Amino acid sequence: MVEILGGKTITEKVKTEVKGRVDNLREKRGIIPKLVVILVGEDSASQIYVKNKEKGCLEVGMSSETRRYPLSIKQDELVKHIQELNCDKGVSGILVQLPLPKSINENEVIESIDPRKDVDGIHPVNMGLLLKGDKRALVPCTPQGIIELILSTGVDISGKEAIVIGRSNIVGKPVSILLMQRNATVTICHSKTTDLPSVIRRGDIVIAAIGKKEMITGSMIKEGAIVIDVGINREAGKLYGDVAFESAKEKAGFITPVPGGVGLTTIAMLLRNTIKAAELAAGEKP
Amino acid sequence: MVEILGGKTITEKVKTEVKGRVDNLREKRGIIPKLVVILVGEDSASQIYVKNKEKGCLEVGMSSETRRYPLSIKQDELVKHIQELNCDKGVSGILVQLPLPKSINENEVIESIDPRKDVDGIHPVNMGLLLKGDKRALVPCTPQGIIELILSTGVDISGKEAIVIGRSNIVGKPVSILLMQRNATVTICHSKTTDLPSVIRRGDIVIAAIGKKEMITGSMIKEGAIVIDVGINREAGKLYGDVAFESAKEKAGFITPVPGGVGLTTIAMLLRNTIKAAELAAGEKP
Repeated sequence: MVEILGGKTITEKVKTEVKGRVDNLREKRGIIPKLVVILVGEDSASQIYVKNKEKGCLEVGMSSETRRYPLSIKQDELVKHIQELNCDKGVSGILVQLPLPKSINENEVIESIDPRKDVDGIHPVNMGLLLKGDKRALVPCTPQGIIELILSTGVDISGKEAIVIGRSNIVGKPVSILLMQRNATVTICHSKTTDLPSVIRRGDIVIAAIGKKEMITGSMIKEGAIVIDVGINREAGKLYGDVAFESAKEKAGFITPVPGGVGLTTIAMLLRNTIKAAELAAGEKP
Repeated sequence: MVEILGGKTITEKVKTEVKGRVDNLREKRGIIPKLVVILVGEDSASQIYVKNKEKGCLEVGMSSETRRYPLSIKQDELVKHIQELNCDKGVSGILVQLPLPKSINENEVIESIDPRKDVDGIHPVNMGLLLKGDKRALVPCTPQGIIELILSTGVDISGKEAIVIGRSNIVGKPVSILLMQRNATVTICHSKTTDLPSVIRRGDIVIAAIGKKEMITGSMIKEGAIVIDVGINREAGKLYGDVAFESAKEKAGFITPVPGGVGLTTIAMLLRNTIKAAELAAGEKP
């Protein structure tokens, strides 16, 4: 019998953990962590994300601030604002809502964030610390959510074959590293992989992060596998994952739905990164 | 018929390439790249490496300097010397010969090097740029040598199954990323991998970087595979690889010997990193 892995339970569990850490930091050191979100333009999806982030901060006892800038803002000016936030001791985390307008070089903006405040975990320093296995790393949110979902199954990751499909900087690459650190034997697949179905069929754990609607079907899934679907594909107002849920759930032991799976967990992980940044800034050990 | 992949030809080819770039930088901008090697203590193996590095620099027209410090040097003092080199515009690359004495925190010393002068490619910033696929990355030398050896076979890496055995920061992890960037389907194995022989047998390309004498035998090698042996295991004054050469060469299409394979290529790659650092510092595009 397949078990459906919803993101809600994880989210609640992680928020409770973060709230405890926030309480502790406030009581012990009088510090209230603060997240600043930078939003350029008025993209409606981004507006919703930002609202949810503000709501999440309040729930765990952190403060938050959203700074809105017009689409016409110059890169230099944006970087100047970020540098001010870097120096502001009252700010624990800085998140630049992506994508930015095309006139702005995204990499240069990201690299202007103090890596110790980069709660999205996408500054080269954090990617490097992650790759080196350094505990100070702030790790991208979606990969953290994926690991929590897998851990919630109770299946031991060590020694399992994990197949990661997709090699993006925010999902495929970091989740491969996290799985390897937990002693999985990890294979990273992508558009040039020869005979993708056979490779996926080896997987005790399958992470689908390709961005193609229902590309992975039940016939590619090993009996009893853990299937984590990171895809968010919009079509005619409806959301679809990268996995064909109905056929895959006949084979999988555990499977995440879309929506309601990985996507739900990311804000909790952002809050966890923010408390971690605040703890490290206060001199606590990672 | 197996082909033996020696490191000498690659080394000569890369040195010629580097020499051309050094000549160009000198003629165009009047800059002579300089490598500074920092050596703490009198480990005899390190002494030999350092000599070879000095010799390599001269061959391609770069200057070099070796700074020797006693084993008793304090970490703070070592870091102060590195910071001076960071500020010195005449220095293109800084290499701290590892291992350092146990009284010194190796990570803190490495992180004190300006990442743009980190020609060993082990600063978190360079590891992060590598992971992100950023061309500015200075990439560790051994993985670069491995890629050159594979390219020298003429076999197209794209779509091949590459098996990397070992997950160290200086070989396993970076070479996995380089292979993935060249569109191989990469599997990273390690001590917790279940049934290692079957996993290795999938490999069109096998990278052995475990540090166990002749652990990988011919029966684990797929017919015609490219086998790159990174192992340097000393026993009774003799060097052994991680691959049992005699049995593996019966199955492999291409195989590197130990000694005489990967090990020979690393200094050429160090020189290439040094000229790259000098070019970037002079404002050239990566």
